[in-house]
Amino acid sequence: MKNIAYYNGKTSLIEEMTVPMNDRACYFGDGVYDVSYVFNHVPMAIEEHIDRIYRSASLIDIKIPQTKEWFKQMLMGLVNQVEGDSLILYFQVSRGIAPRGHDYSALSGGPSIWAYVKPAQLIDAYQSYRGITLEDKRFFFCHIKTINLLPSVLANHQAHAAGAEEAILHRGDRVTEGSHSNISILKNGVFQTAPLDELILPGITRAHVIRICNRLGIPVKEEPFTLREMMEADEVFFTASGALCCRFDTIDGIPVGGKDMKTFSAIRDAYEAERKKECGLL
Amino acid sequence: MKNIAYYNGKTSLIEEMTVPMNDRACYFGDGVYDVSYVFNHVPMAIEEHIDRIYRSASLIDIKIPQTKEWFKQMLMGLVNQVEGDSLILYFQVSRGIAPRGHDYSALSGGPSIWAYVKPAQLIDAYQSYRGITLEDKRFFFCHIKTINLLPSVLANHQAHAAGAEEAILHRGDRVTEGSHSNISILKNGVFQTAPLDELILPGITRAHVIRICNRLGIPVKEEPFTLREMMEADEVFFTASGALCCRFDTIDGIPVGGKDMKTFSAIRDAYEAERKKECGLL
Repeated sequence: MKNIAYYNGKTSLIEEMTVPMNDRACYFGDGVYDVSYVFNHVPMAIEEHIDRIYRSASLIDIKIPQTKEWFKQMLMGLVNQVEGDSLILYFQVSRGIAPRGHDYSALSGGPSIWAYVKPAQLIDAYQSYRGITLEDKRFFFCHIKTINLLPSVLANHQAHAAGAEEAILHRGDRVTEGSHSNISILKNGVFQTAPLDELILPGITRAHVIRICNRLGIPVKEEPFTLREMMEADEVFFTASGALCCRFDTIDGIPVGGKDMKTFSAIRDAYEAERKKECGLL
Repeated sequence: MKNIAYYNGKTSLIEEMTVPMNDRACYFGDGVYDVSYVFNHVPMAIEEHIDRIYRSASLIDIKIPQTKEWFKQMLMGLVNQVEGDSLILYFQVSRGIAPRGHDYSALSGGPSIWAYVKPAQLIDAYQSYRGITLEDKRFFFCHIKTINLLPSVLANHQAHAAGAEEAILHRGDRVTEGSHSNISILKNGVFQTAPLDELILPGITRAHVIRICNRLGIPVKEEPFTLREMMEADEVFFTASGALCCRFDTIDGIPVGGKDMKTFSAIRDAYEAERKKECGLL
């Protein structure tokens, strides 16, 4: 098939899939999601993504009754039906189907499970990118991968409207993360990225990059940094499952980074090699 | 009919209505909504609710191509098909249908229009209610009636789990609003409610109550108040389209209010009379 969608056991082409209006995703964004990229029909870091969606669900009081093994097999069943060497695997769990009402105490029936697989390309990690900075107006549930994504949608759109690829969000002077990525810097050979708190998503690519730094002997500092520290860093980059490790060359139109391509390339190339190995492409 | 749902021109029973998985409401909560209560087949303050959804849509960069008059006629067409003297009219506009992607620059086709009508009762304004207080962890788009409602869902559920009816949110010491209502107090004969900024929804019931106070000669102060000022107020109450004007008797289990029932009753009764007049029930 050229793509496939899944909703509570039903499958079809994505563009033909419909869901009940009363699914709480539709009225409240009452759900969580995750995404993995798939090469050679191997989804990258799939156990980590499945662990995260169970954790996200649990943090908003949704209990997924199925086992993680069931979830993985269900996703692999979809992946295996779609043609192509480079795919995106999206999956979502919403609280379930019920007449609209904020309180969910009386909800009967389990959560709804959504997924789709379709052809998609990673963003090219050998290019450089443009960012803009925006005040972070999001909530204090940013550590949970929820589908309450409207502020991220608006920020991302503003970046594109300004001819950039990513919006870098800050609360006051403190850089938090991108509209759909984590932001990190290199300064004097040290890799620095925001610590895990309620202001940023625990990115799986972020975690991989930290492990790579540890392996390569690059010191890692999980501490907040300011807008100014970012602008003056040796390199600034964003990481995401769909982007791996991509550097900025301008932020708000001002040239940034480009002062430690050697360390940046070492990290990027190590991650690229890891991806190829994991997916049997080497 | 016992109820009716509408989605982009299609109608059915609510429980049978389905929508495309690719509607951006499903992945991003990328939409806005509004609600009116309907008595005697007259939706209360319907022009104000329609004005607000157009304003909400515009604030998140959605342009509704249809006129407000068309919107009203469409809603009235639904209302008139449903039996019952007391109904809820819910309507929602999402950004539209497209393959998932944060940026919406390339979106073709217009926004999606959703609605439903079904029997529902106002909350009884002659009872008193229990509240709990919770830190307001929401975003800075609270002045827009969006469907990014997860923090409100969780707060409201916590209230119900604690045996209360509403969660009163605060940022630090400052009371903002309820999980799905505005919060106001009476102190020394003065009606006080939070000013309109990005922290609270411009409630239509709130606006009506302010007009009623002006008419009754009750001084109005649109200024923030603290948790302590709320606990020590003469009366504390919540207003919403589905609740009109309801007083708390306890907050976090502590008795509140009950010291100026005369002024509170005057406001509540005036609003109740206004509702009956507007809907031809007097």
